[in-house]
Amino acid sequence: MTDGAGGKTIDVAVFGAGRIGRIHAANLARQPGVRLKYVVDVNRDAAAALAAQHGAQVADIDGAIGDASVGATVICSSTDTHADLILKSAAQRKHVFCEKPVDLTLERARACADAVAKAGVVCMIGFQRRFDPTFAAVKARIDAGEIGTPEMLVVTSRDPGAPPVEYIKHSGGIFKDMLIHDFDIFRWILDDEADTLHATGSCLSDPAIADAGDIDSTAVTIRTKRGRLCQINTARRAAYGYDQRFEVLGSDGMLQAGNVRPTEVVAYSKTAVSSDVPEAFFLERYRAAYALEIAHFFAAVTQGKPVRTTVADGLKALELAEAATRSWRAGRAVKLDGAA
Amino acid sequence: MTDGAGGKTIDVAVFGAGRIGRIHAANLARQPGVRLKYVVDVNRDAAAALAAQHGAQVADIDGAIGDASVGATVICSSTDTHADLILKSAAQRKHVFCEKPVDLTLERARACADAVAKAGVVCMIGFQRRFDPTFAAVKARIDAGEIGTPEMLVVTSRDPGAPPVEYIKHSGGIFKDMLIHDFDIFRWILDDEADTLHATGSCLSDPAIADAGDIDSTAVTIRTKRGRLCQINTARRAAYGYDQRFEVLGSDGMLQAGNVRPTEVVAYSKTAVSSDVPEAFFLERYRAAYALEIAHFFAAVTQGKPVRTTVADGLKALELAEAATRSWRAGRAVKLDGAA
Amino acid sequence: MTDGAGGKTIDVAVFGAGRIGRIHAANLARQPGVRLKYVVDVNRDAAAALAAQHGAQVADIDGAIGDASVGATVICSSTDTHADLILKSAAQRKHVFCEKPVDLTLERARACADAVAKAGVVCMIGFQRRFDPTFAAVKARIDAGEIGTPEMLVVTSRDPGAPPVEYIKHSGGIFKDMLIHDFDIFRWILDDEADTLHATGSCLSDPAIADAGDIDSTAVTIRTKRGRLCQINTARRAAYGYDQRFEVLGSDGMLQAGNVRPTEVVAYSKTAVSSDVPEAFFLERYRAAYALEIAHFFAAVTQGKPVRTTVADGLKALELAEAATRSWRAGRAVKLDGAA
Amino acid sequence: MTDGAGGKTIDVAVFGAGRIGRIHAANLARQPGVRLKYVVDVNRDAAAALAAQHGAQVADIDGAIGDASVGATVICSSTDTHADLILKSAAQRKHVFCEKPVDLTLERARACADAVAKAGVVCMIGFQRRFDPTFAAVKARIDAGEIGTPEMLVVTSRDPGAPPVEYIKHSGGIFKDMLIHDFDIFRWILDDEADTLHATGSCLSDPAIADAGDIDSTAVTIRTKRGRLCQINTARRAAYGYDQRFEVLGSDGMLQAGNVRPTEVVAYSKTAVSSDVPEAFFLERYRAAYALEIAHFFAAVTQGKPVRTTVADGLKALELAEAATRSWRAGRAVKLDGAA
Repeated sequence: MTDGAGGKTIDVAVFGAGRIGRIHAANLARQPGVRLKYVVDVNRDAAAALAAQHGAQVADIDGAIGDASVGATVICSSTDTHADLILKSAAQRKHVFCEKPVDLTLERARACADAVAKAGVVCMIGFQRRFDPTFAAVKARIDAGEIGTPEMLVVTSRDPGAPPVEYIKHSGGIFKDMLIHDFDIFRWILDDEADTLHATGSCLSDPAIADAGDIDSTAVTIRTKRGRLCQINTARRAAYGYDQRFEVLGSDGMLQAGNVRPTEVVAYSKTAVSSDVPEAFFLERYRAAYALEIAHFFAAVTQGKPVRTTVADGLKALELAEAATRSWRAGRAVKLDGAA
Repeated sequence: MTDGAGGKTIDVAVFGAGRIGRIHAANLARQPGVRLKYVVDVNRDAAAALAAQHGAQVADIDGAIGDASVGATVICSSTDTHADLILKSAAQRKHVFCEKPVDLTLERARACADAVAKAGVVCMIGFQRRFDPTFAAVKARIDAGEIGTPEMLVVTSRDPGAPPVEYIKHSGGIFKDMLIHDFDIFRWILDDEADTLHATGSCLSDPAIADAGDIDSTAVTIRTKRGRLCQINTARRAAYGYDQRFEVLGSDGMLQAGNVRPTEVVAYSKTAVSSDVPEAFFLERYRAAYALEIAHFFAAVTQGKPVRTTVADGLKALELAEAATRSWRAGRAVKLDGAA
Repeated sequence: MTDGAGGKTIDVAVFGAGRIGRIHAANLARQPGVRLKYVVDVNRDAAAALAAQHGAQVADIDGAIGDASVGATVICSSTDTHADLILKSAAQRKHVFCEKPVDLTLERARACADAVAKAGVVCMIGFQRRFDPTFAAVKARIDAGEIGTPEMLVVTSRDPGAPPVEYIKHSGGIFKDMLIHDFDIFRWILDDEADTLHATGSCLSDPAIADAGDIDSTAVTIRTKRGRLCQINTARRAAYGYDQRFEVLGSDGMLQAGNVRPTEVVAYSKTAVSSDVPEAFFLERYRAAYALEIAHFFAAVTQGKPVRTTVADGLKALELAEAATRSWRAGRAVKLDGAA
Repeated sequence: MTDGAGGKTIDVAVFGAGRIGRIHAANLARQPGVRLKYVVDVNRDAAAALAAQHGAQVADIDGAIGDASVGATVICSSTDTHADLILKSAAQRKHVFCEKPVDLTLERARACADAVAKAGVVCMIGFQRRFDPTFAAVKARIDAGEIGTPEMLVVTSRDPGAPPVEYIKHSGGIFKDMLIHDFDIFRWILDDEADTLHATGSCLSDPAIADAGDIDSTAVTIRTKRGRLCQINTARRAAYGYDQRFEVLGSDGMLQAGNVRPTEVVAYSKTAVSSDVPEAFFLERYRAAYALEIAHFFAAVTQGKPVRTTVADGLKALELAEAATRSWRAGRAVKLDGAA
């Protein structure tokens, strides 16, 4: 199939018809030269509904990946399926966009990295925060030298509420499930790698989370190879909503990336001057980021350019999440190294 | 033609393939059950380009309005064509979405109002600000009683720069061209009508505007029939960009509608703590509003519901613009009445 | 009496031991080289209490002004006593600091101006807003050229609640009692004089104010001799407190002077992100300004320098207040001229 | 000596006529019932100048403390003199206000605590931040339950620039010299004690600081006995000035304590919307706090009430500073216990 401009249209198979799958499907359907051909989900009704919405077909995994006309797969299914789908996609030389994390184990994640390298396909990991207009503007302004040398990063990352305990049990723990995004932000913003990492935490919102062997509040400190410092504070529950901020102190100034509000209304009452709470959760907060990352992926595929968030970035973030888990469990700082 | 849900698809003809025409075309193409069938523009190339983008056809006025399958027209052509296109649309019983103003003369605008009333078609005027999420939230919160009785409205409305003098010469003057939006905001927010109006102004940015018989800076005060007060300050040029704010003092508090920023970055330098200037101009500032007003129009047409911005609203805003022009020229306050 | 540095200490008589008198007394007592010698008030208890607090004596008018050792009078008594006290002070060649307004009639105010000119004494009028750090910073930045030529001024001036109707009856009306400060701000910030003025208003908070022949909400527009525009909106009642802001649009940018908050706390709840309401009323909002204006007065007296807010400024503000009253009553714009 | 109200006036000796000594002297001179009698400083000129300003006398240590009429000492001399002056004051049963830290060694600090306990005198440590209106408002609102249970504290504490290296060499290191305030904030705000502490840091601004065995940037994490988390980030140099903020996440919301600005001016230019950088340094930022803490001290002394910042608080903060120093040097988290 060809697009209007005479270029080749890329047919795409989307795996997973849940919340994030629906967002990626809608965004990719809007890309010129991209066609949603298949939707795959163990929940056939969900797959059928999403496929119908975009004039696509329902397929099973092999049917979708086996179709020679499919140029790319977009993997939004549950975490435990990511590695298999990446490996199968690579085997069939499909380009891959995969939600984070690559896998919950470093071993399998590395196998994925090897496979896509060998196949010579693009493999982009869905660290959408790098595409958030506010976060990306901070990065660009740092790179332009506005604050001199970046020296200290403080990341605040809080969810509006904890997911069901059943989810938490299979999540790989808060460091792999939630902070993996913050670890990626850390590497991207400071443009440096961790030398030592210290993590601690508590379960403060719901004892069931502790019973599941996890925590809901964390405090992580990373010292980089170049001596830069990073502190990350995370909570599963912020009563006021989804809180996604960071600030970077540099030798010549500071840049802050703030929350986004639904409206710019300010209300003056007898007791307070008030504005909106932040956007409710990631689907709202990162709406623009999701659209931009999908556009970036297909532009990279089409133009043969590198992607901003590679499978190597996925591996590095996973290494940090593993190190944080070890540090928290052992109650001591840990050293990161090549072998990690 | 029918849509997927078994409903009738509405075929639409868009008049005008300029900036705002392209925005409306893209937004309406995204509505389920709506199809862009024709693009009409004296500039055939522009029409062809826009038509191609959405799989539509180029037509001339009579071809488009004469097609019995067309259910609605969207009028984004130059102001002097609005009245004719409304009248022709009404004659063919097409629903009409028309950019402001209806016309530069009250007489012809009233003829349009009569025609659409007689034809029994929907006629919505493009006062998109009522659909801006921030502005609409203020209105909803006033209506919910948050600030008690609204008593005073202050509107700040400044463009980033003056249009070419050639445009100004045919614009009907600053009150009809620019403040018409503010007059609509005034009526909508205070839910009241003007009793007296005083307008003054100056030409401060470019003498060529004065030579064209116009001004670039205005200060308008309206006292309503219920004694409420409204002040509007307007400038053709704000060095920092497009400034669109208002605030409403009520008996129990105040609500402010602020500008929208491209990002939420805050920068700390040796000399200042800085955030972004407002969105550059109306296409950026009201991007969401344009999408929401088109969705509102087609929902109203489909469901037979009233529109938020009627041709009567267009007439009222025009009456205020004429009164302001008279007041400014005469150097005295003027009285509004039924005869206006 | 001499101060520690060998300079002459100035003995001062304060007239009026009310709220503002107590503030000025405390501030002047802190000036090096200044001694509070007399407190005069028809309420002898109030006078005695204030005198005791600062080691001063109670006196009557003639006793205080008649004392040759007294170098300056500070007049904070009721408005109807201002002119007499200025004239008596001038007659005895005392320097004068007098609260606004000079008088409620232009005629007597002019007599005061003539008297102090003839006597060659300093006469400073208490337009304390010019000494507010925020307002003064805006003025300094305009003067430094930061926003190019100032073109438009919007002043918001709202009290937290109306004074007793009994006060209003003798206040000279809202334009002389309340807006006189805003008229002074206008002249100071735009560095220009009014050419035409339009005022309108309503009584919205309490019918008793209307019964007293006054209004509680005003909207004033001034066009200056150089064509600059100024809008002032005023209300006797703002539910959220004392609201004192202005903004100046210039050819190259804009400067806003905002409210001051008691603390910099920001609270995030389930429904809002909130900060403090503005400082409660003028005693809190202008605490720094009151201290700075008294220091300025005594520095001017000591060093023989001109004061920032002269009796001529007081006259000009009064002329504008009279013009506004006329405009409001007549329902038409009025022309200001030398004869006013 | 008696004050005007018949109460006993407290005569005070101030030790140290430097920056902070001058501030305390001016503040205490303004307290009713308090008289500055002696100023003591090894720099006799500085002592003489400060004494002259307040009508006090210059004395040496024994002369001042030996005077039976002296009721309280205010110790603002160099850190190495604190313990001696506290011990001498206690021996003569003088109440003591002492700048932080009590001493650079826990041993001597504990001796001071014992001495004041035995003498039964008030000993207040100058943790002035607890008296900052913004910080104190956050504390009061937490105590009132506004955010439920406090769970996480993030403290940002940055100086505008590093002191001379000569000072740093005798400062006891960044944790005792700079973070001691933050450790006190931590205990006060979370109302909890440290269980474990991890500190890391770097020297990023000036190699001479590293040569002196110190660092200029730190990242500290504390986990409390109740499982609450605290992160402190500190830098000796913030290009934009003195940065003093914290935020507290609770089970029901969040409270932020922000910086204070000199003015409330907002400037709109072609490129940015800007406000003032924070107050320049501690003398400006904590001006109100210094006045309030001295008033608190003398009120406590006069009324026999407990002080908000006791010598025990000084000891606890010092213990945390020592733990942080150990943690940083050892590169591992440390456990706090009763023995510390």
